Amino acid sequence: MGNLPTIHVITPTYSRPVQKAELTRLSNTLLHVPNLHWILVEDSQRRTPLVTRLLQESGLNYTHLNVETPRNYKLRGDTRDPRIPRGTMQRNLALRWLRETYNKNSSLLGVVYFADDDNTYSLDLFEEMRNTRKVSVWPVAFVGGLRYESPKVNAAGKVYGWKTVFDPHRPFAIDMAGFAVNLRLILQRPQAYFKLRGVKGGYQESSLLRELVTLNDLEPKADNCTKILVWHTRTEKPVLVNEGKKGFTDPNVEI
Amino acid sequence: MGNLPTIHVITPTYSRPVQKAELTRLSNTLLHVPNLHWILVEDSQRRTPLVTRLLQESGLNYTHLNVETPRNYKLRGDTRDPRIPRGTMQRNLALRWLRETYNKNSSLLGVVYFADDDNTYSLDLFEEMRNTRKVSVWPVAFVGGLRYESPKVNAAGKVYGWKTVFDPHRPFAIDMAGFAVNLRLILQRPQAYFKLRGVKGGYQESSLLRELVTLNDLEPKADNCTKILVWHTRTEKPVLVNEGKKGFTDPNVEI
Repeated sequence: MGNLPTIHVITPTYSRPVQKAELTRLSNTLLHVPNLHWILVEDSQRRTPLVTRLLQESGLNYTHLNVETPRNYKLRGDTRDPRIPRGTMQRNLALRWLRETYNKNSSLLGVVYFADDDNTYSLDLFEEMRNTRKVSVWPVAFVGGLRYESPKVNAAGKVYGWKTVFDPHRPFAIDMAGFAVNLRLILQRPQAYFKLRGVKGGYQESSLLRELVTLNDLEPKADNCTKILVWHTRTEKPVLVNEGKKGFTDPNVEI
Repeated sequence: MGNLPTIHVITPTYSRPVQKAELTRLSNTLLHVPNLHWILVEDSQRRTPLVTRLLQESGLNYTHLNVETPRNYKLRGDTRDPRIPRGTMQRNLALRWLRETYNKNSSLLGVVYFADDDNTYSLDLFEEMRNTRKVSVWPVAFVGGLRYESPKVNAAGKVYGWKTVFDPHRPFAIDMAGFAVNLRLILQRPQAYFKLRGVKGGYQESSLLRELVTLNDLEPKADNCTKILVWHTRTEKPVLVNEGKKGFTDPNVEI
């Protein structure tokens, strides 16, 4: 595997009842992928024992970071939505960590992928993205109120727009799970981050990608964007009605 | 792995938008487990191309079965709930298949586990159940309105009851994901099936287990039932509001 580009998977995560379950099944998937580096970024004041142990016991090559999103963040007199979208500060911290850790002149750098902890990933997806030159793209299931959203690809294999109902004129109308970026490009554009504030819904991905590429640079994967290899699944919040009343289960048992 | 008991994982499944995603991440987990045999049973009139392909490409050792649960099943004059609980006929078909396929006098038979396609399984769980002599048991997270339900285990390591709020006096107050059965025991009790009709909520597991063992036979696993190794996660039904209106995405693309 000496010459296989590394896939740096950036996963923001936060404490909730299903967190350990989600990270467990995601790590079961990632464990199949050669030359993978998992950058797990907790939205918390400190790195938690739960996540620390899970990573230690995972068998994965990982980096464990943390940064807490400020609650009720508000600029005085600012009428825009003052909340920082969940995961944004965590993804940006991982980008900063990559820039502080790797040198753009290194020969083998690999690719960066933003993988939330509740999505479902096929193993084929990782091999599709591994040889990304700038930014590769593919369809994502269960986003935008659709079975899937997809880049539009012409006969010459070029991306020329977005198959989506919600605001198809966004610069990059694509879900976070639908693209990967060559790490060298991340290092060559040290100012490129996700915008924290004043970003309309659906524009978070564009706020990073417009700093990195134009539409013409995109590399369609997954058989010219005709195959679904990633699903934006969401896990139900578990019903704990019998718990709240009486503190029934042992709080020392980690779930 | 010549002497490692086989784990026969029985999974009922049915067609829905997230089916392929669920089966994909479950197969990613099962693929790590040595000597595993996946018995996937579709609730359908025919074995579907989607599931057939997924199994063929999974790299798993599998058996693909199907049986359709009758809709609106009703006995004339029967005032009990006439519906057959989802998954029951499928699990019973797998039990029948095992009895027709294996001989109780064989030396190596292994263990049977009922694994729904939406739960989350740690890899450790499978090694805990592998050497089940009769029936092994352990806690399950997110059932019965609790963080977890668990068998109660005394100082001598014997199960003496059930830590649950909902009807703890059921014979076996345990979720389907909370036990495994030695295959030889399944073969020795050829009449033992899940009851199809007239089973009150929460009594399905008991309807099988009472034909196989008594409380005294149970083997607690997962450090005497102090560790959570399986989570009864549920996946949200995806919102497809933009799909219904205009048939927006290509129906030939499999999701």
